[in-house]
Amino acid sequence: MQVVVLLFEGITALDAIGPYEVLARVPDVDVRFAARTPGLIHSATHSPLTLVADYALDDAPRPDILVVPGGPGQAVVCGDETVLNWIRSAHASTRWTTSVCTGALLLGAAGILRGVRATTHWMSLDALREFGAEPVSQRVVVTGKIITSAGVSAGIDMALQLVALAWGEQSAQMIQLGLEYDPRPPFNVGHPDKAPAALVDRILAAKTRSRR
Amino acid sequence: MQVVVLLFEGITALDAIGPYEVLARVPDVDVRFAARTPGLIHSATHSPLTLVADYALDDAPRPDILVVPGGPGQAVVCGDETVLNWIRSAHASTRWTTSVCTGALLLGAAGILRGVRATTHWMSLDALREFGAEPVSQRVVVTGKIITSAGVSAGIDMALQLVALAWGEQSAQMIQLGLEYDPRPPFNVGHPDKAPAALVDRILAAKTRSRR
Repeated sequence: MQVVVLLFEGITALDAIGPYEVLARVPDVDVRFAARTPGLIHSATHSPLTLVADYALDDAPRPDILVVPGGPGQAVVCGDETVLNWIRSAHASTRWTTSVCTGALLLGAAGILRGVRATTHWMSLDALREFGAEPVSQRVVVTGKIITSAGVSAGIDMALQLVALAWGEQSAQMIQLGLEYDPRPPFNVGHPDKAPAALVDRILAAKTRSRR
Repeated sequence: MQVVVLLFEGITALDAIGPYEVLARVPDVDVRFAARTPGLIHSATHSPLTLVADYALDDAPRPDILVVPGGPGQAVVCGDETVLNWIRSAHASTRWTTSVCTGALLLGAAGILRGVRATTHWMSLDALREFGAEPVSQRVVVTGKIITSAGVSAGIDMALQLVALAWGEQSAQMIQLGLEYDPRPPFNVGHPDKAPAALVDRILAAKTRSRR
């Protein structure tokens, strides 16, 4: 089984590494990191973190499982027909096509979310409508072979659910215990439905400022 | 404020990237990835994931916050006096010294956990005693300026707690909501106290086999 994780400049690292850490632990899975231009990939503007894409997109044309992460760089990739064509073409033969965070917008831009119930980072849920998708505020959304997940950290939950679907619950449980995934968030503010309104407003204001 | 994340061959990527994703979102924090030999760092034997260490240890001698991840490669680093001396010397002037997963064994090998309550991956808890530490089965353990955390995924919880301690709860809550850290593990098996005994035995047996 081949898993391909798409990398691009300005990716959010945890979007990619969360699912990677889960999927790489499935026996006999071949995980590949692929990008339009292979080599060093910087995780976000001025970020100190560099990942490496070992494969060009053409060298990973037919993944069984496609993982599309998000991140600030997603907006640029949404206009890159080379990458969108690759997503479209890979999706035609995947067993599972998945996204984390705003990676869902890339699936949308590739045209594969029309009429599909899907999720993404809470700040971008509305944007899914532009691509004909039906936004759902849910941690992980499975619609046929398309699995989308919420913001950044949700990729871990998504990948565990995917392992359960593709290899069985026992495999997923082994990996969950191996990663000691027994989360204890220090605050109960991880979703806007739970967070104080002032906190949500502060984040939205910061986002608006950064767009100017 | 300077954060240094130690990298080494055979690191578990999520141990490093979880805390990175949290700490890099604190305004004006300078996060650096450092290794004995800077350059490409492979995340585990035969792993397809490569990270990049931009700094040699000598170029990051005095972090305010030290993050020591774990992973299968930790056993080799435990015998590397150059790295252990650097940890010891960095710790002398840190504000916070932290570990994720078996990174705690590196802190232990550096001699800085003697008499310290500490935690690590559940499979390695007993090994902490070899270094004079007092093992505690807890997600995150704060003992003075030393913060240790449980296996792999616990680095996210640790880093959020660290941000709350170092920059205040509001900063930590902003980051938690930004990362949409509202985890939904698909199974209630993330800790051996919760998992069925047969599952725990299966993991321990696999570990014993891989040691042979």
